[in-house]
Amino acid sequence: MPSDKLKAVALNCTLKHGKDPSSTDKLLAEVLAALGRHGVSGETVRVVDLNIKPGVTPDEGAGDDWPALRDKVLASDILIFGTPIWLGQPSSVAKRVLERMDAFLDETDENSRMPSFGKLAIVAVVGNEDGAHHCHAELFQALNDVGFTIPAGGATYWVGEAMGSTDYKDLKVPYDKTVQTTAMLASNAVHLARLLKAAAYPGMP
Amino acid sequence: MPSDKLKAVALNCTLKHGKDPSSTDKLLAEVLAALGRHGVSGETVRVVDLNIKPGVTPDEGAGDDWPALRDKVLASDILIFGTPIWLGQPSSVAKRVLERMDAFLDETDENSRMPSFGKLAIVAVVGNEDGAHHCHAELFQALNDVGFTIPAGGATYWVGEAMGSTDYKDLKVPYDKTVQTTAMLASNAVHLARLLKAAAYPGMP
Amino acid sequence: MPSDKLKAVALNCTLKHGKDPSSTDKLLAEVLAALGRHGVSGETVRVVDLNIKPGVTPDEGAGDDWPALRDKVLASDILIFGTPIWLGQPSSVAKRVLERMDAFLDETDENSRMPSFGKLAIVAVVGNEDGAHHCHAELFQALNDVGFTIPAGGATYWVGEAMGSTDYKDLKVPYDKTVQTTAMLASNAVHLARLLKAAAYPGMP
Amino acid sequence: MPSDKLKAVALNCTLKHGKDPSSTDKLLAEVLAALGRHGVSGETVRVVDLNIKPGVTPDEGAGDDWPALRDKVLASDILIFGTPIWLGQPSSVAKRVLERMDAFLDETDENSRMPSFGKLAIVAVVGNEDGAHHCHAELFQALNDVGFTIPAGGATYWVGEAMGSTDYKDLKVPYDKTVQTTAMLASNAVHLARLLKAAAYPGMP
Repeated sequence: MPSDKLKAVALNCTLKHGKDPSSTDKLLAEVLAALGRHGVSGETVRVVDLNIKPGVTPDEGAGDDWPALRDKVLASDILIFGTPIWLGQPSSVAKRVLERMDAFLDETDENSRMPSFGKLAIVAVVGNEDGAHHCHAELFQALNDVGFTIPAGGATYWVGEAMGSTDYKDLKVPYDKTVQTTAMLASNAVHLARLLKAAAYPGMP
Repeated sequence: MPSDKLKAVALNCTLKHGKDPSSTDKLLAEVLAALGRHGVSGETVRVVDLNIKPGVTPDEGAGDDWPALRDKVLASDILIFGTPIWLGQPSSVAKRVLERMDAFLDETDENSRMPSFGKLAIVAVVGNEDGAHHCHAELFQALNDVGFTIPAGGATYWVGEAMGSTDYKDLKVPYDKTVQTTAMLASNAVHLARLLKAAAYPGMP
Repeated sequence: MPSDKLKAVALNCTLKHGKDPSSTDKLLAEVLAALGRHGVSGETVRVVDLNIKPGVTPDEGAGDDWPALRDKVLASDILIFGTPIWLGQPSSVAKRVLERMDAFLDETDENSRMPSFGKLAIVAVVGNEDGAHHCHAELFQALNDVGFTIPAGGATYWVGEAMGSTDYKDLKVPYDKTVQTTAMLASNAVHLARLLKAAAYPGMP
Repeated sequence: MPSDKLKAVALNCTLKHGKDPSSTDKLLAEVLAALGRHGVSGETVRVVDLNIKPGVTPDEGAGDDWPALRDKVLASDILIFGTPIWLGQPSSVAKRVLERMDAFLDETDENSRMPSFGKLAIVAVVGNEDGAHHCHAELFQALNDVGFTIPAGGATYWVGEAMGSTDYKDLKVPYDKTVQTTAMLASNAVHLARLLKAAAYPGMP
């Protein structure tokens, strides 16, 4: 019987390498902290520092870092998918991860269930301006296609005024509406992840 | 204590009035039949025959048919949102319904829960050609924004080859892949709806 | 030989009837004024006050106001498509207009040219928060599908900070970035509309 | 005075390396051939074989292949943007290229014109199934944001029936509707590119 202790993994799909400050990082840390208040443990992975090769198979060969990242995703109950907004859209790093998850469609068990079945996906999006809802839409659709469940209020975000240049990481005080949205997101995700961990989708017998 | 018998309502957002044959109707009937095999009862509403007034409030006054339709949606455990594809996008009728649900954002209870919390939304999309995934994306995002939960594999669809003109309602034999997708969708939706009916999201106390 | 005096028509796809103040109206007035500085004349139509019937034909019968609106669109050189953002997406009124333009696909001349060929479409989007780029994307794609040309920098917009509630119409001072974007949009649209008016697409002889 | 001989460059944003057969390649070759019938010369670049580094600047340093590719794009009159569909969306390689073009926003001349002003972007999309219109929408919006003009009928595509697995490259006979769409796309693009080459956008003096 699985432990009822939930695990999360946060994928930071920023374009910035290494320890460069990342607004996406800041929001993901807030999501992880909010989940932590419900007893969920987790870590953030900066995907651009890995070599996630182009392709749609589970393993694209020598040097491919996806198999190890895939293991982390599948060892977690909650996937927190974090992306910055560029030109109103999710990042190329975010898209690369989604493409690699496409392989889940062919990795079904005897009841036609993908390895992601029963896991939750939630979304965290930041940008200087405009584009969050569209990122939610594309990420929800792609993540749901590859087997994840989306809880009520499954996204949190921050964006500034039209054509703005302020970064989330540079805000001096917490932005109340994002803080509240993140708290509700964590509450919903934990509730639903517990239910699905205790009672898996039966699939198609 | 609520009955564990689940109810569904299917919204057909076709542009065609009355009893005109509708491909969306055909797919919605198949979804309802698949849910019926799990003991779920439900009906289809052809939204274009109602007067759903433009606006974003719960009741737009004299002649507005939204309040009654809203009641049907909120009396159900599973919302099946059906739309045809026009120009690669959901119909204007689908958009009108989503706009009216925007009011849920302000109708929260003492724990900040929208009236849609704990209800599932699933999606059924048909077109002569191309556009289903985009409709999924827009519908998932909007329905999730207004409080619905999306189960794994939360959509079923059919579209023909590029620039084709065949209608789903005119297919001579069932299309296996859509049939299987619909069956899995029903299985997942029923499983998750039962869990959420028995254990509501706690919201933010 | 056609006059080289350009005409524009602005479609306001707000959900608000009659003379209710509309942020979309404000932005459309600014676009028309910017076009006016290049000698273009035009007017705004509030679409929700008309009876644009559901359907995809040029004329949906008794009471349909689309044929007259269609004439206005086709008598203009520049279509300014204005929509508010609801749930991160264009309005149902905007979608209704696009659906009616779907008929252009079948109304081609002997050189396979739609009646919209040679006309420009530009886009103006406003919302309390987030969603402009996605509206641009959906509108560009649909309008281009039905034959319109999109000039460089083919959109202007305003949105506030995440989850904000300020309206564009209530801003006390002009928002510089939107003002500049609108000015460039007008310059580009007029330049390209003049070129296309003087030299029509040849189509497929 | 610039030659009136037009040049095109086709970016193949497939995930497949090297000489692996690519359906996107096939459609791009057809677009180039159609343009060639109007006297336009051009070549295809397989972007995944280059090292296009993550980032949003014109040059991301040692080993970055973007500066050379950027030069090719800016030496052309027509950009043909080709992408496969994965999960109903453009590829990560396509997104990477768009991100690098984001830098155009800051590279304006004394009349506030981006280096892409006056150039056309057209789009070619292929997939086993569903997703072309959404790719058109995202690509049109992003490419227009960074300064490109979109001609009437600015896209061509092929996709198969829902959840299908046929590849465009494996079709035994040309698919008439795609062939015709490609021919009209080429005619429109060449006409508009000639007009803009002869009479540049004035920008904001």
